[in-house]
Amino acid sequence: MTRWKIRPLLTLAGVLATFAAAATDQARHEDGGMLGFTPAHAAAQQSLEQRFDAQLDPADQRSWLKQMSSAPNQVGSPHDKANAEFMLAKFREWGWDAHIETFSVLYPTPKKVALQLLGPHPYTAVLKEPVVPGDATSNAAGALPPYNVYGGDGDVTAALVYANYGMPDDYKELARRGIDVRGKIVITRYGAGWRGLKPKLAQEHGAVGCLIYSDPRDDGYAQGDAYPQGGWRPAQGVQRGSVADMQLYPGDPLTPGIGSTPGAKRLAIKDAKTILKIPVLPISYADATPLLQSLTGPVAPSGWRGALPLTYHVGPSTAKAHLTVLSDWSQKPIYDVIAMLKGSTAPDQWIVRGNHHDGWVFGAWDPLAGNVALMAEAKAIGGLVKQGWRPQRTLVYASWDGEEPGLLGSTEWAETHAAELQKKAVLYLNSDTNGRGFLDAGGSHSLQRLVNQVAEGVTDPETHVSVRERMRARMLVEGAGKDAKPEAKANAKLAAAGGDVPIQALGSGSDYSAFLEHLGIASLDLGFSGEDDDGGIYHSRYDSFDHYVRFGDPTFEYGVALSKVAGHIVLRTADASVLPMRFGDFSSTLDRYVGELHKLVDDTRKATEQQHQLLDLHAFALTSDPTRPVAPPARDSDMPAIDLAPLDQAAKRLELSAQTYQAAYDKRAAAGFDMPAAQQQQLNQWMGGMEQALTDPAGLPGRAWFKHFIYAPGMLTGYDVKTVPGVREAIEARRWDEANRYAVVTAKVLDRYGEQLDRLTALLNK
Amino acid sequence: MTRWKIRPLLTLAGVLATFAAAATDQARHEDGGMLGFTPAHAAAQQSLEQRFDAQLDPADQRSWLKQMSSAPNQVGSPHDKANAEFMLAKFREWGWDAHIETFSVLYPTPKKVALQLLGPHPYTAVLKEPVVPGDATSNAAGALPPYNVYGGDGDVTAALVYANYGMPDDYKELARRGIDVRGKIVITRYGAGWRGLKPKLAQEHGAVGCLIYSDPRDDGYAQGDAYPQGGWRPAQGVQRGSVADMQLYPGDPLTPGIGSTPGAKRLAIKDAKTILKIPVLPISYADATPLLQSLTGPVAPSGWRGALPLTYHVGPSTAKAHLTVLSDWSQKPIYDVIAMLKGSTAPDQWIVRGNHHDGWVFGAWDPLAGNVALMAEAKAIGGLVKQGWRPQRTLVYASWDGEEPGLLGSTEWAETHAAELQKKAVLYLNSDTNGRGFLDAGGSHSLQRLVNQVAEGVTDPETHVSVRERMRARMLVEGAGKDAKPEAKANAKLAAAGGDVPIQALGSGSDYSAFLEHLGIASLDLGFSGEDDDGGIYHSRYDSFDHYVRFGDPTFEYGVALSKVAGHIVLRTADASVLPMRFGDFSSTLDRYVGELHKLVDDTRKATEQQHQLLDLHAFALTSDPTRPVAPPARDSDMPAIDLAPLDQAAKRLELSAQTYQAAYDKRAAAGFDMPAAQQQQLNQWMGGMEQALTDPAGLPGRAWFKHFIYAPGMLTGYDVKTVPGVREAIEARRWDEANRYAVVTAKVLDRYGEQLDRLTALLNK
Repeated sequence: MTRWKIRPLLTLAGVLATFAAAATDQARHEDGGMLGFTPAHAAAQQSLEQRFDAQLDPADQRSWLKQMSSAPNQVGSPHDKANAEFMLAKFREWGWDAHIETFSVLYPTPKKVALQLLGPHPYTAVLKEPVVPGDATSNAAGALPPYNVYGGDGDVTAALVYANYGMPDDYKELARRGIDVRGKIVITRYGAGWRGLKPKLAQEHGAVGCLIYSDPRDDGYAQGDAYPQGGWRPAQGVQRGSVADMQLYPGDPLTPGIGSTPGAKRLAIKDAKTILKIPVLPISYADATPLLQSLTGPVAPSGWRGALPLTYHVGPSTAKAHLTVLSDWSQKPIYDVIAMLKGSTAPDQWIVRGNHHDGWVFGAWDPLAGNVALMAEAKAIGGLVKQGWRPQRTLVYASWDGEEPGLLGSTEWAETHAAELQKKAVLYLNSDTNGRGFLDAGGSHSLQRLVNQVAEGVTDPETHVSVRERMRARMLVEGAGKDAKPEAKANAKLAAAGGDVPIQALGSGSDYSAFLEHLGIASLDLGFSGEDDDGGIYHSRYDSFDHYVRFGDPTFEYGVALSKVAGHIVLRTADASVLPMRFGDFSSTLDRYVGELHKLVDDTRKATEQQHQLLDLHAFALTSDPTRPVAPPARDSDMPAIDLAPLDQAAKRLELSAQTYQAAYDKRAAAGFDMPAAQQQQLNQWMGGMEQALTDPAGLPGRAWFKHFIYAPGMLTGYDVKTVPGVREAIEARRWDEANRYAVVTAKVLDRYGEQLDRLTALLNK
Repeated sequence: MTRWKIRPLLTLAGVLATFAAAATDQARHEDGGMLGFTPAHAAAQQSLEQRFDAQLDPADQRSWLKQMSSAPNQVGSPHDKANAEFMLAKFREWGWDAHIETFSVLYPTPKKVALQLLGPHPYTAVLKEPVVPGDATSNAAGALPPYNVYGGDGDVTAALVYANYGMPDDYKELARRGIDVRGKIVITRYGAGWRGLKPKLAQEHGAVGCLIYSDPRDDGYAQGDAYPQGGWRPAQGVQRGSVADMQLYPGDPLTPGIGSTPGAKRLAIKDAKTILKIPVLPISYADATPLLQSLTGPVAPSGWRGALPLTYHVGPSTAKAHLTVLSDWSQKPIYDVIAMLKGSTAPDQWIVRGNHHDGWVFGAWDPLAGNVALMAEAKAIGGLVKQGWRPQRTLVYASWDGEEPGLLGSTEWAETHAAELQKKAVLYLNSDTNGRGFLDAGGSHSLQRLVNQVAEGVTDPETHVSVRERMRARMLVEGAGKDAKPEAKANAKLAAAGGDVPIQALGSGSDYSAFLEHLGIASLDLGFSGEDDDGGIYHSRYDSFDHYVRFGDPTFEYGVALSKVAGHIVLRTADASVLPMRFGDFSSTLDRYVGELHKLVDDTRKATEQQHQLLDLHAFALTSDPTRPVAPPARDSDMPAIDLAPLDQAAKRLELSAQTYQAAYDKRAAAGFDMPAAQQQQLNQWMGGMEQALTDPAGLPGRAWFKHFIYAPGMLTGYDVKTVPGVREAIEARRWDEANRYAVVTAKVLDRYGEQLDRLTALLNK
């Protein structure tokens, strides 16, 4: 652990002097100095961080994790409530002003699920995850059976069609082979995109039901030995999960845009657009195998083949499958634990830190490993308060409920407190799971510098270099080689330059969405991963304490590392003289995104011309084997001029504004941020509101809930981000007018941001 | 079939007139006119080709295939000799001057093979391919058990290590994981490179034995349903094959460079460098599975994982394996069937056409589908002779024995008749297998125009466009998309330009090697493939007539198409006034290769710098998981300047020579090739010898048998070509001095070629 623990006989003064000296050294080492702090203040802050770190004990996290994962803790379970109450008591014990905020949400649970293959080789799916020897909780009662929440009810009997990952291009491949999914049950495999998109597309294409199975290639024996020998998904393991159409809006399907409070007007279930009409069921590869074996028809294309020992065919099957899903559609309470520490000098500036506490079953890795890191921070902060410290700004520590069904707890809370949050919240810092290895950092690029400085000051437990240097090494290695993806190459290029490493843009998949993409609050999402083997038990009964201490973070030293990184970010944001944001990083990142859009336009044009040429030369028809014909693809629409000039110009103007701002900021920083209190308060208030300038009340095309014009989850990816979404998604979907329109709209948003930046500059120069 | 067959009542004159008219039309359509022919002569040639085509009956090929594949026909078997005698009788019946040329070669056969896994889960490998219902020959006696010829004898017991495809990079990955193969038995999988390289590298790394198994991902159930339901390799199917170090020299291991004639001096077996020292055995995936399951150690990298339902580990195994291979090392006779038709006006110019007739078991697809096409050509040519035609130049039709062990029959014959062939042979046209779909055409680029013109004149049986247009379509489709390989993209670019489609450069793997790469005779290798499912039964008991008529070319219409393409090439080369070669195509192709070498130099330099940067930043060490460490790669050697200027300049000079030559040629062609007979004879003699100017007696570095400086099989690929091998392989192997040296040597070879071309020009201008 930290070195002062091994020198208990030094005098306090001596110890503090050592801290201060080391801290000043470290502060000097941070190039440019600690963002938002004067040098003296930075030294004190380093000292504070060391005292924070000193209280982080991996034994705490292990103990809390064991307790909280000791019984099923999904929404509506007794243990989910018990965990909330446990945390409430802890936060209060640590000196926080804490309460539980309850919401009543639609949360369907399965009453009956059944799946059979009929015909000459009948099979009844097991649909259960068996006990695993050595995994203590795997036989606990009270877990929900594997299911997908927010699918429709249904009792359907139909032939099967295999649709690979069930993504849009997969349906094109089926069409080219003359395979029609109307009236069929589609079987897809997990991976390559948001889970909910699979049944949504199946439904749009006329399927009557959808099955989603976990192929061992993606997270089973092909990745490593199956649990319990290794950490990967065993044959009867199932990935539960939400299939709500969260790209439309997350949260309670019945209360889009408003909190699920007692008086709130709720939609009728049948009118809720994010709930599917067809039944959906997740299944294991043990249950999927007989179904896949029943498929006839063409052999599946090579990218469709998993690791099961069979020939993958696209179908349809000659035998029919019978799928039954019947749910209890009642409301359930969810319990958000909210703990606050009022700021001493700027109480109306809030730093919000969140992680969810509900799992699908025991939730040891997802989410409790992240949640206990958050708790450790809260305990250590409480300890600092006992030592006499007080945050300048208000801290709000939250443990959300209902994330798994669809970011319910965070979204309903954010929608309920929207106005206050938009007025006060300067940062939302999220975590979800935590593993072992490398820091994943995503979020608003104005916070990139802060993340880098903090990561530089935290030591990686395994390699003993800084967390930042290990991030850099990972980016360099992953971006090397000819086969590296463009995103990885871009990261490697930036990492190789030697200074800050890039943080990633956020899409969706965890509780930051409502804050960043709906309310426009600058956000971060953090966690360690890369070396742990947790992916295989994701959303299954085997995401347990016993699994986590073997295959996750056995010593909890990475839990402590997460607490340090997140904690230091919270503390610095709470105490900085001027909020630790650097808008030039947003500006340069935006430049990069605009460059990507130009490349996207060029690549799309080239691909269109190439496809048209191939079609005009009958190349597809001539390469089709008449004994197993594949029709040519549908002709891509012609591509008119795409005018990105408005974006180019807005980006240029923004670059200038950012430079002018930086010059004014540096001048103020060199003078120790010496300015009247009211001016400093105004500065911080406006800085805290900058991210909102990247939103527009009208929202993105077709999904008004998503209001951020730079970061959004892809309509067709769900988890993965689409930056500059109004333009990028229009190009990708070949909606040319929309692309041109939203280049103008987005440019206006960027201009507003730039104007707000100019106001900051003027204020700095006053 | 052809239309004249349906109009039997027309007068002969009318029919011939129709032929002539159609022929003249077609001749005019061939842009630039039929290469090497005057227009009137071209029209007659078209007519000749139609009369040739008219005699091609798919029923002949089906009947011969059935008979010749009706019993095992490997080297030394009774049926192999019977097939040779059958063909001898046929050639004579068709009017050819035919004989059998016998060679006595070293041909070891297995006396005893055994493989067991010892330890707690013992397993005795079956090592047999079972009978398959519906496959009539699958229970025939007289087949050799599955084995690899020219491996060493041995009785070894050792732990197993899995080495993926057993290629050089795979051993680097093992080394990085601290896995040592010394004293182990290496288990590799077929694919990604020449079979013989796998045990050769295992031996070089100190292994005591080598197993090669067929993973279902590569040619089993992952590709399509297993035989007999589909055409792919069943669980106990085995790929036999040679493991002789053919990159050193092919042919009889005991007679490098000379024919295995009665008086020839033979090496002692222990001194034969192309024979391995360690035992090698090919096995099925049914037999491989328990062995792979016994492996512990790190999980294999993702590119190492096949389609078996297990976690692939690199090893070593805790249990040991016991491998026994004992062979009968005696000599066997091989029977080359040689049939000749003496040319009427230029009998000392030879066109040699070859295919082998020996299989590993029944050899229906490999090689008999190709061999019966050759036979059909010989029959039809015999028919033309009966009709009164005589080739201008001498035709030599050969059916080789002993190809499977290592190109024995063709190599020994070529080495025996080396001087005569170098004096007389103007073309060697090879085929091996034949399937269904698209023409694969490789060879000397001076023959590219000829191949294109002929392919344009043959109709594809399925799509009814020309064979050339279907080649073009395939190249366009395979070269489209971002993930297409550079070679495919290059082909697509050339194909898209609309004129000739490129032919591929030849490496090795069939009987053209001795002619092209040892003697420097312009060569071609042809066959149809792409739609048939023959890859899975390659070199197994299931390459049978019954398999071929279901999954190969059921109607034999592609066998007829191959006879047409090969036959028309033979006839045109035999009868052209001036040999149908266009040296400008070689020159422009060489330009492309030199450009590739520049790119190779640049890419290698970039990759070296990148690797050094990553090493210097400790990126590999920092991304290694200490619980499953992977050491950094060995540091690549520094890369000095590589001077390709000699090649650039030689290519430029050659381009000029080619242009001057073409101008002189076109002038002569426009004047109907009107020149004194002696001048025309000299011209053809020099043209026929042009390819030899691309050879150097010293041969390539480390392998003097390979004398062609533009085309050679890769030392580390075996099948796949390395163009400009002296330079390219030196760069790839980081032998920088050798690269610079061979740039100069190759430039000199090209200059000699250019000078010879200038002599042709001078002769044309006389």
